[in-house]
Order: sequence, then structure tokens, then C-alpha cells
Amino acid sequence: MRTGGVFNILGKLLILLSLSLLTPIPFSLWFGDGMVPVFLVSAGCGALLGGAMVLLFLPEHDLGYRDGFAVVVLSWLLFAFIGALPYHFCGAMPSFVDCYFESMSGFTTTGSTILDRVEVLPASVLFWRAMTHWLGGMGIIVLSLAVLPLLGIGGMQLFQAEMPGPTKDRLAPRIQDTARILWSAYLLLTLVEILLLMLGGLSFFDAVCHSFATLATGGFSTHTASVGHFQSVYVEAVIIVFMFLAGVNFSLHYQGLRGRFSAYWRNEEFRLYVILSTSAVVLIMFANGYHGIYHGLGENLRTAAFQVYTVLTTTGFGTADFDKWPAVCKVLLVSLMFVGGCAGSTGGGIKVVRFLLFFKYARLQLRSLVHPRAVGAIKMGNVKVPQEVMVSILGFFALYIGFFLLASLVVTGLGVDLVTGTTAVIATLNNIGPGLHLVGPAQHFGHLPPLAKVVLVICMLAGRLELYTVAVLLTPDFWSMARKPLWRWSARRLVDKSAA
Amino acid sequence: MRTGGVFNILGKLLILLSLSLLTPIPFSLWFGDGMVPVFLVSAGCGALLGGAMVLLFLPEHDLGYRDGFAVVVLSWLLFAFIGALPYHFCGAMPSFVDCYFESMSGFTTTGSTILDRVEVLPASVLFWRAMTHWLGGMGIIVLSLAVLPLLGIGGMQLFQAEMPGPTKDRLAPRIQDTARILWSAYLLLTLVEILLLMLGGLSFFDAVCHSFATLATGGFSTHTASVGHFQSVYVEAVIIVFMFLAGVNFSLHYQGLRGRFSAYWRNEEFRLYVILSTSAVVLIMFANGYHGIYHGLGENLRTAAFQVYTVLTTTGFGTADFDKWPAVCKVLLVSLMFVGGCAGSTGGGIKVVRFLLFFKYARLQLRSLVHPRAVGAIKMGNVKVPQEVMVSILGFFALYIGFFLLASLVVTGLGVDLVTGTTAVIATLNNIGPGLHLVGPAQHFGHLPPLAKVVLVICMLAGRLELYTVAVLLTPDFWSMARKPLWRWSARRLVDKSAA
Repeated sequence: MRTGGVFNILGKLLILLSLSLLTPIPFSLWFGDGMVPVFLVSAGCGALLGGAMVLLFLPEHDLGYRDGFAVVVLSWLLFAFIGALPYHFCGAMPSFVDCYFESMSGFTTTGSTILDRVEVLPASVLFWRAMTHWLGGMGIIVLSLAVLPLLGIGGMQLFQAEMPGPTKDRLAPRIQDTARILWSAYLLLTLVEILLLMLGGLSFFDAVCHSFATLATGGFSTHTASVGHFQSVYVEAVIIVFMFLAGVNFSLHYQGLRGRFSAYWRNEEFRLYVILSTSAVVLIMFANGYHGIYHGLGENLRTAAFQVYTVLTTTGFGTADFDKWPAVCKVLLVSLMFVGGCAGSTGGGIKVVRFLLFFKYARLQLRSLVHPRAVGAIKMGNVKVPQEVMVSILGFFALYIGFFLLASLVVTGLGVDLVTGTTAVIATLNNIGPGLHLVGPAQHFGHLPPLAKVVLVICMLAGRLELYTVAVLLTPDFWSMARKPLWRWSARRLVDKSAA
Repeated sequence: MRTGGVFNILGKLLILLSLSLLTPIPFSLWFGDGMVPVFLVSAGCGALLGGAMVLLFLPEHDLGYRDGFAVVVLSWLLFAFIGALPYHFCGAMPSFVDCYFESMSGFTTTGSTILDRVEVLPASVLFWRAMTHWLGGMGIIVLSLAVLPLLGIGGMQLFQAEMPGPTKDRLAPRIQDTARILWSAYLLLTLVEILLLMLGGLSFFDAVCHSFATLATGGFSTHTASVGHFQSVYVEAVIIVFMFLAGVNFSLHYQGLRGRFSAYWRNEEFRLYVILSTSAVVLIMFANGYHGIYHGLGENLRTAAFQVYTVLTTTGFGTADFDKWPAVCKVLLVSLMFVGGCAGSTGGGIKVVRFLLFFKYARLQLRSLVHPRAVGAIKMGNVKVPQEVMVSILGFFALYIGFFLLASLVVTGLGVDLVTGTTAVIATLNNIGPGLHLVGPAQHFGHLPPLAKVVLVICMLAGRLELYTVAVLLTPDFWSMARKPLWRWSARRLVDKSAA
């Protein structure tokens, strides 16, 4: 690994983060909550650390994909650290582990909180909390659409007909181009939602914080009662629409913004996402209507749609306690938790495209049992999906089960009860937010043992970075090669090859 | 499909089943429970139906693999029907759906019961209940080791380096040879267990019934308190050993009985099975010891080992209520439920070999992210596993999730609560026996709505026949080809090809 080059990039990213740590200051001045020094000191720490890294380590231009893994994971770890400083300095959280948990939950757009009542935080710190979502969402879009496919993993890689071997020279410019394009879509959607929420009577502060949390599918609210606090059909409707949009591949939004609306419906993953969520809403409305849970079709539709999209997109906002719904609705909602958003969206979970290919494959295989001599292929759109890509889904599921089991064993081993422990792991690994029982929607993660919080932080990060990125850093191979001088030589050889 | 040939075979199999329906008669005479007419009439019905089928339909020699699917599924459906007659005629069960559920639960070696107290059944009917397990276990060994691999599916197919296209002429003789060899191992192990249990003070009747239920990994007991009824360390130890053996690939037992003991340890799946179960026992002993649940190391070991093997092999016997154990033990046990036995054993579940290949694949893929130009292959023993076989695991998981979700939605949609409904599906789909809550170890399935019982019967069958066998019969392809005359022509052509 080219340690110098990696730390140089990390240093530059930290300086950018420090600039964003200044954004809560206007809010602090407006609300007069006295948090200006907190943010100045936090930004100073970040800038100091980042500056030192840039000065100490020289940039290197031939960074490989292995350095890519290190940059991705380390940047999230470092961001969460610097992002935790305002929580620490404002003094509202009992321990630094809690601050780090809250910060990582923000940057990974998970939305799990250690706070009993979010109102204990000063307004500007609440804004910073929403800001971590929004920055994390930005990072995830670029990560899932540009960085991870180049590293040969992630949901978007499944779309590509041929996996290009990661060639070093093209890594940086391609990421920059993609990033610029997609961030414009992200920014535009955020601005529109802020405007629409303000039209619904929300203050600028609430509108901004909730828009940040929606577009990033994060789920941090400025109120303990979450979106339910506003008691407004209009606000809920706006948030439903934007949760839906945040769960869509952002490269489709970019095409949509350029007028190519047909791109949406031509995308198979988008079609499945629409069909899946609509059928879930209809089924839940039917079941809740049959059991007479809500009065009137409108009330029923509004609650069902909000819960379906908050769960499917892994946002984690709440307006109703679905623990009181019929069992069949709970089965549906829990299943949707695992599905998650589309690849290339800010949503977490396993991603719609994996399930799409998964069931396409099952159908193909059943057909091949009837026609064993027929040659079948799995297509996405009109492009054939190679078998290597198909089996990579298998690897993803293996890692998923591995992470889930190991984390559940550690968390329950620390004395957490069965339902709380396993759903805490599910909620963090899928970047949803709340789990069930003691970490349910009306509860929080604050009472868990510190070591359990550390494990859940790893789950958030692993889920967010599509498992492989974190898992690969845990393999001996990754580190053994870093020590061998052979690596440098072979890396050079690969560069020569790709240039030839 | 060659309907005539299929029904001819089914008729012959039914006549064999009718003969086995006479075996409870000596017990009935011994205990004087007056069930002789019940078994005579049941056997008569079976023989009549079977005889009619043999007489009406002529045998056909060029049966294809598609006919194979039909024979496998229909034989289990018909066997469960004829096997349900004694329950119906003895009058101890309220409805025929209940009788069919109990019978299918027996033949699929699931062990779920609709009975509140099993002692309400006459002794000879209890013997028949255990007998269905034993016959089902016999069928499963042949099915998983000889029939399904030829059809190109099942756990054992994963071992084969090249999947042979199913050629018709060799189907029958190969199955017969394999069957004869493996049944000898099955029979011998059963006899040894009967003997050992009788040495422990069990009556011949109890020894036979519990041996049948152990070797088939079924779990029906002659007592409501299951194996816990005997309160004997020796009996539990014997049953632990034989549960362990029943969860092993029976082709290894055949080699072991011929003196080739090294075959066991050379088998990678066996090694993982041993390591997995031993570590689970140790972990549970540690957790239970730490929480002071049992007094003394012996008591702790005995309870932990019994619960691990009854769950891992999907037998479903009980000696302790593990619902009161620490959460970490429950996470472990529930995970083991999904793993199940080895391929080619009588155990249910997903099978150890699938997880083995699953995690081998994940490791290979992580390594290939570090060394992208390196070509890796997954090996079982010394044989390379082709990628087609690897992706078939993906199809299996897709079908598994599909069956689980659909069944859970229907069962909870019928008004069953969340935990009861989903664990009932898990318990039947993995052929375990008891679930949790209202279908927990101390409960039964009798109170579920009739339609839910039908769905669970399908789950038992699908789980037992490795999903594909049942799923393929649900595809339109399977039936559309049966109607086309083209099929006959192309089938002949394939025969010519394979002869050439």
C-alpha cells in the first residue's frame, strides 16, 4: 500500500470536512445557543490534523485499487471521529463512544441514536447532526456510482456487462466527473424539498434538517417524535415523495433532470422498486383496513405509504407505531428492511438489484431443469450479466450472513437480549436506524454496553461500504502484500501492462 | 411427461408402502389396543389404489428426468395420504387435514405434531408414526444421494466435479445399487441404537420408536415430554451419538462400515460439521456456565450437547427449555437450525456443504480483490467445483427466501401472530419440528387454521425435496412442455444422442 499517498488524500478530505464544520455557526448565532466556540475548536482540530497529514505525506499519482479500499474505509473512520467532536465539546453526551456512535450513525446515514430525547442538543448541534447525514449521502452516491464499481464491487458493478479491471490512471478523473454530475442532482433535490417543506409551514431550520435527513435516507429528526411531530398530511406527503426519490439510483435522476424521463422506466431495477413498494402499500392498506386499524382510506394510505418508504429506503423516520399492526404487515415491513434502496441511491440494505438478479437466476435455473440443453443467460436491460458478476452476489450474501452472525453473537454475548441484540445489528447493518424492543422506534441505543456500540459502529460502516470494502481490510492477504517488496514491482508491471 | 410410466411406478411404490402398514399389527396384538382392523383397512386401501395404478398404466422404460421430478413429488404426496389413514381411522384426530399434516410431518422427518398429548394415540399408531419417520429417512437417503444428483440438483450435486446430464438408461440401475448399499448402513445403525437403548432400560417398543425417530432425524417421541421423559444420562448420551451419526453423509457411513474410517476425516463437509457442532457446544457451555444455569460440568455438557445436535441435525427431540437460556445461546441455536445436517444425511436444513462452499467463495472473492489478476478456483477435497454448481447455490437461496416469504405472508395473513407464524414456517421448511411461541417445544400445531396447515405441509415437502423439486413443478415450463407433442420427439432425439 502507498501509505504516503493515502494519508495525503485523507488529509485533503479532512480539510474539506473542517470547512463544513463551520456551517452550523450561522445557526448558532441565530439561535444564540453559544456553540460557536465548539464548532470553531472542532473545525480547528480537523484542519490541524488534515493539514499535518498533507504536509507530512507527499501526494502519489499511481495509487492502486488497494489504496482505494484504504482511503474509503479510513476516510469514513476519520470523518466520524472529527464529526464526533461537536457532540463531545457541547457536553450533552456521557461518553466519547456515544459521540462516535452518533457521528458514525450520521455519516453512514443510518440514523440510530443514543439520545433519549434529541431536544437536549443545542439547535446548531442538531443541524450538524443532519449535516453529517447530508455529507454522508454525498459520499455514498459517489462511492456507489463511481468508486466501488472501479474497485470491482458494489451494487452498480452488477449493471456492467464487463467488469473493467481497475486501471489506475483513470480512477481519479472519472470519479471527479461522475461526482460533479451527481452532486448537482442531489443538491437540486435537496433545495426543492427545503422549499416545499417551508411552504408546509416548517421553519427554515426544520426544513433544512429534515431535507438533509430525507435525501440521505438518514432519519435523524430535530424532534423526538420524528416527522410525527408535525401532524401534517402535506409534510408527510412531501417527505414520502422525497424518500421515494432518495431510494432511486442518482444517475437516473441526472438523466431525468436533463429531460430524459424515459430513462426511469427503462431501468429494470427502478421498475421493480416501484412495483415492490406499491404492492407493499396496497397489501398493508388491505390488512390494516380489514382489521380496522385506521379510519378512512386517506389516513390508511398516508400511514401505510410513509412506513413502507421509510423502511424500504432505510430512512427510519416514524409517524406510526407499526408494532401494533397485524403480523402480516410486520412480515412485509421487515422483509423490505433487508431489500433497501436501489444501487446508486443513498438507501442502505442489500439493494433491489441484488434481489432482482437473485430471482432472475432462480427462474433461469428452474427453466434449465426443464430444458437442460437450452442455454440461458441473465440480462439486465439488453446486456448479458456475466457469471462472475452473478456469483459475486453469492459472496455478498455470505459476507452479509457472516457479519450478521458474528455481530449478533458478540452483542447478545455482552448480555443484550435476543430481539434487541439481533434487531440492533439488522438496523445498523442495513443502515435503517431503529430496531425493535429496547432499540425500537420509541427507544434509543444509549443503554447498550460500550463494546456493543463499537460492534454496531463496525456494522454501520460495513453495511454502508457494501461489506467487501471493510471485509477486504480484515483479510491477511491485504496486509501481507503491503509488506512484500514484490508488490511494488508487480504493481509497476500491471501499470505497464494496462498502458500497453 | 410419460404419465403412464410415472403412475405405474407410483403404483408399485404404494404396494410396498401397504406392506409396511402391516408392521404395526404385531404391536397392536401385543398391547391389545384393538387397532388391527385399522391397519388392515389402511393397508387394503393402499394396496387397492396401488394395484389399480399398476394394472391401468403400463410400465415405460424411457422415463426422463422430468418424469423423475413427478415421481419424487407425487410419491411423497401419495405416501402421506395413505400414511394418514391409520390416524384417520383410529379416530384420535379431529380432521383429515390434521391427519395429513401429521403423516407428512412423519415422512418428511420434520416431527411437527398437531397433538397436544401424544399419549392419546394407541401404541401401535405411535409405532406407525415413528415408522413414517424411518421410511421417510430411507427415501431421503436415496433421494439425496442417488436421485436428485442425477436430476442435476441437491446438496450432493455440489460435490461432483462435472454434472452428468441425466441419461435415462442409467437412472434405474444406479439408483437401485446405491439404495441397496446405503440402506444396509441405515438398517445396521438403527439396529445398534435399538440394542443400546434397550440396554439403558427402555422397552423394546420405546427403543424401536426412538431409534426410528433418531436415525431419520425426525423427532416424534412416544412421550409428550420427549426424550426428557426418561431422565437418563445414558439414554441421552446414546441418542446424542446417533443424532450426530444421522446428520452425517450416509455414503461415509458405508465406507466406515467397510473399515475405511479415514474417509470421514478426509471429507471436508464432515470436518466442518464436527468443528461447527463442537464449537457450538463449547460456547453454549461457557455461556450457561457463566450465567450459572446448570450445576456441574456434566449436567451442562449433557444439556448443551443434546440441544446442539437436536437442532443442528433438525431432529427436534427435547430435554431442556432453551427459551430460558441466555440470548447468545439462542442466537447460536437458531443459526444452527438453518445450517442443518450434511448433504446425503437424513437431516434437513440448508446443509453444511452449501455454507462451506458459500464461505469458501466469499474468501476467494476477497482474495481476488487483493490479487485481481490471480485466477482462483473453489475446491472440494481435490476436485474443482465448476462455477455453474456455485451459482446453483445462489438459486437455492433465492428459492429458499421465496418459499419462506410467501409462506410467512400467507400464514400470518390468516391471523397467526408474527413469532408463531414465521417460526412455524422455519420449523417446517428446515424439517426441524417445533418452532417458538405457540408452536414452541411445549406446544403443538393443532390450533393453526387449516389453510395454514396446508401451507406448512407444502413447506415440509419443499424443504425435504431441496426446494427445486417442488418449485420446478410450479413453473409453467414444466407443464407447457408436457402438452406439446414436440416433447416426445425431442426426448427420443436426446436418447439417440446419448446412445451415440
